[in-house]
Amino acid sequence: MADSPIRVTVWNENVHEQQEEDVRARYPDGIHGAVADGIAGLLGDAVQVRTATLQEPEHGLGQAVLDETDVLMWWGHVAHEEVDDAVVDRVQQAVLGGMGLVALHSAHLAKVLRRLLGTSCNLRWRNDGERELVWTVAPAHPIAAGVPHPIVIDAQEMYGEHFDIPAPDELVFVSSFAGGEVFRGGCCFERGAGRIFYFSPGDQDYPVYHHPDIRRVLANAVEWAAPRLRHTAAGSENAPAGWFEALHR
Amino acid sequence: MADSPIRVTVWNENVHEQQEEDVRARYPDGIHGAVADGIAGLLGDAVQVRTATLQEPEHGLGQAVLDETDVLMWWGHVAHEEVDDAVVDRVQQAVLGGMGLVALHSAHLAKVLRRLLGTSCNLRWRNDGERELVWTVAPAHPIAAGVPHPIVIDAQEMYGEHFDIPAPDELVFVSSFAGGEVFRGGCCFERGAGRIFYFSPGDQDYPVYHHPDIRRVLANAVEWAAPRLRHTAAGSENAPAGWFEALHR
Amino acid sequence: MADSPIRVTVWNENVHEQQEEDVRARYPDGIHGAVADGIAGLLGDAVQVRTATLQEPEHGLGQAVLDETDVLMWWGHVAHEEVDDAVVDRVQQAVLGGMGLVALHSAHLAKVLRRLLGTSCNLRWRNDGERELVWTVAPAHPIAAGVPHPIVIDAQEMYGEHFDIPAPDELVFVSSFAGGEVFRGGCCFERGAGRIFYFSPGDQDYPVYHHPDIRRVLANAVEWAAPRLRHTAAGSENAPAGWFEALHR
Amino acid sequence: MADSPIRVTVWNENVHEQQEEDVRARYPDGIHGAVADGIAGLLGDAVQVRTATLQEPEHGLGQAVLDETDVLMWWGHVAHEEVDDAVVDRVQQAVLGGMGLVALHSAHLAKVLRRLLGTSCNLRWRNDGERELVWTVAPAHPIAAGVPHPIVIDAQEMYGEHFDIPAPDELVFVSSFAGGEVFRGGCCFERGAGRIFYFSPGDQDYPVYHHPDIRRVLANAVEWAAPRLRHTAAGSENAPAGWFEALHR
Repeated sequence: MADSPIRVTVWNENVHEQQEEDVRARYPDGIHGAVADGIAGLLGDAVQVRTATLQEPEHGLGQAVLDETDVLMWWGHVAHEEVDDAVVDRVQQAVLGGMGLVALHSAHLAKVLRRLLGTSCNLRWRNDGERELVWTVAPAHPIAAGVPHPIVIDAQEMYGEHFDIPAPDELVFVSSFAGGEVFRGGCCFERGAGRIFYFSPGDQDYPVYHHPDIRRVLANAVEWAAPRLRHTAAGSENAPAGWFEALHR
Repeated sequence: MADSPIRVTVWNENVHEQQEEDVRARYPDGIHGAVADGIAGLLGDAVQVRTATLQEPEHGLGQAVLDETDVLMWWGHVAHEEVDDAVVDRVQQAVLGGMGLVALHSAHLAKVLRRLLGTSCNLRWRNDGERELVWTVAPAHPIAAGVPHPIVIDAQEMYGEHFDIPAPDELVFVSSFAGGEVFRGGCCFERGAGRIFYFSPGDQDYPVYHHPDIRRVLANAVEWAAPRLRHTAAGSENAPAGWFEALHR
Repeated sequence: MADSPIRVTVWNENVHEQQEEDVRARYPDGIHGAVADGIAGLLGDAVQVRTATLQEPEHGLGQAVLDETDVLMWWGHVAHEEVDDAVVDRVQQAVLGGMGLVALHSAHLAKVLRRLLGTSCNLRWRNDGERELVWTVAPAHPIAAGVPHPIVIDAQEMYGEHFDIPAPDELVFVSSFAGGEVFRGGCCFERGAGRIFYFSPGDQDYPVYHHPDIRRVLANAVEWAAPRLRHTAAGSENAPAGWFEALHR
Repeated sequence: MADSPIRVTVWNENVHEQQEEDVRARYPDGIHGAVADGIAGLLGDAVQVRTATLQEPEHGLGQAVLDETDVLMWWGHVAHEEVDDAVVDRVQQAVLGGMGLVALHSAHLAKVLRRLLGTSCNLRWRNDGERELVWTVAPAHPIAAGVPHPIVIDAQEMYGEHFDIPAPDELVFVSSFAGGEVFRGGCCFERGAGRIFYFSPGDQDYPVYHHPDIRRVLANAVEWAAPRLRHTAAGSENAPAGWFEALHR
């Protein structure tokens, strides 16, 4: 798969942008537009990027779209509960079958992330526009390539521990905030054949998705989460004695 | 909590026992009865054991029962889909809040385990009554205390890889079968405040729950999974600046 | 082993205390004395605590002492290189054989910790007497029992990422500092049959080992690291075909 | 680094080949020659492969060689103790600085692997020429790409649990043997900036390194272990307050 472009779909609930003028000013093409622009700008021909939103039929995530998506990025906040369970099922199956998933900021509570992780994914928060420092704790990890240590975000919503997730398979970034809190904000998980990256920076009230280091992390995450395999997840399979010996004849 | 008995509830779908005479002969008190008997026999006053089955109201798992359960053991096979989603929700929340869960054999496909792990939990299988050897790969783990290396089970259903689970937080046992397959049959997970142990030996067609080494593993698992904490899982919480400084005044 | 007291040996290089009056004033019985006092005070009859220092023959860690030690606590800083390699070998073997090890603060560079972990264990540091906040990221972990979230230490040396350790088997605490840095300051490792806990708070220039919450963490760590098994580490063993069948006759 | 060839050095103690005619017949160019041939054959221009042996000055692993090596493969057995400690130090530092290491079969006891992992790395063994089945437990892992499930090796030395290693960061393969034993034979570790893969199949008494599936695993391992970063491991660094703010001016 190395030589064909990575097919990225950036999904956004796209609600704040409809309702709040300041968000629209900050993200005139929507948060999805800014994320898509960042990735396309950094990865160029190595990606094909499209967007999808809650308001579209099947939220823009019909089976055909998922079949043609290597990495799905997900931003949601106020409308998690409006996401149809059938779509959640479909996305979960796609991830188990190998599609990458990059869950952004308030998507910690997205149905599909909670479904894949099994926990509440709750956390502490405070929206005071504090400085966030994003520290790399895994310097050789490809998602941390090319970003400073720390990344400095001048103003952000605070997300703090305890963050109720399973222990991540790899912990890449830990943030601190001006108020003193820490947060495991860059976490890798593998579920089925799919890779999942959760990345906490990014809020509708701050221009975080225009920050060049954050864009670099997102581009790295796309490359990391691109499937090694794509298949429909196997069913439970009866295996008669000696089944594998026949493979080698 | 060290000094009060661990309150164990052994849950069984209890279907094979109703329908198949040979299973009833093997497990006259049901699989739940055999499991409960094994634990009570080994742990004595250190546990209080009760049972619950699918056929009871709320499957015997009302909120009051869960509130009084430290460790829930779960056996299911043909009736996974008959388990009410409201009960599954309740059990998931109890685990996240600290209740231990020991999932047995074909409970790899139990709704609640798949819900907590997020993957399909599919595997390969063959029911030919083969010898299973259960090897300890974590000799210092308390669940492996006091059992031989390997445990020998003369006849069992084969469960083989690939087993579609998240990488376990701790891998304790790996089985091999006469036909050559291997299986990660003793896996620890932590989700929220709860501990989960999946243990594959045990099938309605073989007297595995009468095997003294298997009983020892189950007793060890109960002790390991007993809660360190019991609380309702926290919601997402707003935390005004300096909130924690007040804690220390 | 649950009923006999945990035998704890608190080891200290004991150099700052000899050379610096302010350290002597802060720790009149040495850092080892303060640590030992804290543990004995909290755990009472459940522990037997002794101390040992660099200046004693074999640094106070002869084979007989290690054979009678369940958990070894280790504080060192300026004299790491004066620790005899034969003693390091012996401690490493004891840990692999099941003895617990609690490595404190600047012991991140102790020969024996680097030997057991295999990496440089380097980090960033700054000694400006800053506030350290110790956040729990694993609330159900027994080492975090009974301490506030966060623990507040008014003045401490800063230890910051990147901390060059293997990914810990369990991450319990992450600290933040007034200057903005974060640090994985509470890390569990298992090596052979032994459990290792590294805990960063504690410096000769601050009274951290008199802090009640820090003492609680140390007492919890002793209980956690107490051996499940004690044995001499197995050699590589020839295993003739069918060797295990004989176990069950 | 993606576009320049991966520079591989295959190291072998090269002792059996000198002393035993049957080994020489099986591996006329040495085990190192067969391994190098397999990798070069599969990866072509994507690699530059050279070999080095114990008998060369500095065992063929001078600093200049390591500086020009992206992935070091290591085979040793009877001569582990003849490897100079200065070379072991140098290889360990190179791995921590980002060089990949692929440790083969009896190299489980190589000084450098034990140094990097910190444990005894002991295991059970039996040399009866038994069938080994190599099962993939992480099907989406790149090291498992393109090999059958299971790989069948008609005759091999048995390596069995307990294998005294730290819990691997990723477990890729688990083997079973005709005699019933299991073995975690494909294990990934990360130490410092370097990736380590241990792979158990391969013995001087069997033509395992001519097996096409084993060669595929080795080629995959080279690609996986190729450095994401190359640097000399950082020392402990003093960091004055606000040091990072200057990064962003």
